[in-house]
Amino acid sequence: MEIKLAQNYGFCFGVKRAIKIAEESPDSVTFGPLIHNKNEIERLKKNFNVGLVEDIDEVEENSKVIVRTHGIPKDKLQILKEKNVEVVNATCPFVTKPQEIVEKMSEEGYSIVIFGDRNHPEIKGVMSYAKDPIVVLDVAELEPQLSKLKEKVATVAQTTRKFEEYAKIVNFLMQHKKEVRVFNTICNATFENQSAARELSKEADVMIVIGGKNSSNTKQLFRICKENCPDSYLIENKEEIQPLWFEGKKLCGITAGASTPNWIIEEVIEKIKKIKV
Amino acid sequence: MEIKLAQNYGFCFGVKRAIKIAEESPDSVTFGPLIHNKNEIERLKKNFNVGLVEDIDEVEENSKVIVRTHGIPKDKLQILKEKNVEVVNATCPFVTKPQEIVEKMSEEGYSIVIFGDRNHPEIKGVMSYAKDPIVVLDVAELEPQLSKLKEKVATVAQTTRKFEEYAKIVNFLMQHKKEVRVFNTICNATFENQSAARELSKEADVMIVIGGKNSSNTKQLFRICKENCPDSYLIENKEEIQPLWFEGKKLCGITAGASTPNWIIEEVIEKIKKIKV
Repeated sequence: MEIKLAQNYGFCFGVKRAIKIAEESPDSVTFGPLIHNKNEIERLKKNFNVGLVEDIDEVEENSKVIVRTHGIPKDKLQILKEKNVEVVNATCPFVTKPQEIVEKMSEEGYSIVIFGDRNHPEIKGVMSYAKDPIVVLDVAELEPQLSKLKEKVATVAQTTRKFEEYAKIVNFLMQHKKEVRVFNTICNATFENQSAARELSKEADVMIVIGGKNSSNTKQLFRICKENCPDSYLIENKEEIQPLWFEGKKLCGITAGASTPNWIIEEVIEKIKKIKV
Repeated sequence: MEIKLAQNYGFCFGVKRAIKIAEESPDSVTFGPLIHNKNEIERLKKNFNVGLVEDIDEVEENSKVIVRTHGIPKDKLQILKEKNVEVVNATCPFVTKPQEIVEKMSEEGYSIVIFGDRNHPEIKGVMSYAKDPIVVLDVAELEPQLSKLKEKVATVAQTTRKFEEYAKIVNFLMQHKKEVRVFNTICNATFENQSAARELSKEADVMIVIGGKNSSNTKQLFRICKENCPDSYLIENKEEIQPLWFEGKKLCGITAGASTPNWIIEEVIEKIKKIKV
């Protein structure tokens, strides 16, 4: 039986990269949890002595600090530098991009509109690089602030937002302002996982979806696979695998939810490989 | 009885301006008809000796040539200059703007998307200022050309197009390209005439709409006025006025279609003023 991974699965590019950076930076701390997966954070602590601090005051002088995927506000970065800390930047490049854009556009005299949640760490970081940014989640929030904006507006979006909602903001801006410079900073990771699972499940005669049974994005993946491949199974780890599922099968497809670390996926693959079909 | 003109009516800003320029440039020719109104072109010929040439080869050396509201392609302008012609530029500033934008954006390395009709004189002019522009009327036309565009796209629209259609083009571009620089070059003149007629007709107890009975935008104005003011009348000129319409009325509102010259409107007003109510 052939085993095939979906073209996109599990952690997104930025999270995979951050974990690799953390593994290559032992004896350090991350400022805020690197990713939202407790097992993975425990693994990094145990295997690489990568700890966790939640409060910037807890960061020790001359230590090594990993900046997580969401990035951090400019002033916090400054504090770290003043503490003579070795900063290891694991900010997702897709998050660094809007930071750089709003900084440059502010310098060029554009008003900045950020489509996103002002309480989200990613947006707090992006905001800190802009001059007087307006942060909105919809047109209703933007409309009363329209007069604060110049005729030249530049706009970016939180990486995890829906495109259709961003388009509404842009259409409203272009209706009222002479120039709108649109940077589409939305990342399609979740969408790409779904799209790859759809493709693979059309081809496979058994599909294994690895992820939390309460995770909404994992359940979504499972639903998509089940539509195309009736023999689809949702498991949290290798312990749940049943050899019976693979009897007489030719192609086993594998995908994983956005919170599933690679090592759990690899353990599952190793176990399936050993099954005699 | 009070007589009140709609806040916006008749010729748009660019056409009014062009006619004023023509009146101030006697003994000249326009290259192509200045506006699409035969009576007005005859008047300019009779009163100011402003003639008309349709073909650039007919333009005489050392003559005076008026460039009409739509503008002309760069190469045609060059030919006029080579003929030592005195060029009087009556291009609408709202049309000059997209010409300047696509020229600058081409220099800055942006791919250019023009939303408009490639056979319209205005768009022929704008195209001539861009490097390899893509000209489309809808997404269906744009989609197969997407791969020709760089990741940085700048876009302008024909001044008379509908905003909603332009928004569709922009949304498609922002879904596929990293940066989309949107210049909203649509002119709201027609919409503004309609909106002003709506307001005035709510207030007036008799409304006079001046314009061609076959003109679609005039009929549209008449329909809007009639909705709010049942005593609305559509006339082509002062001859059609009936004193009976104004008996016992307090406020006479006046609007005019986009092809109605001011002097026809003024003649109507003069005649209404003389009516005893």
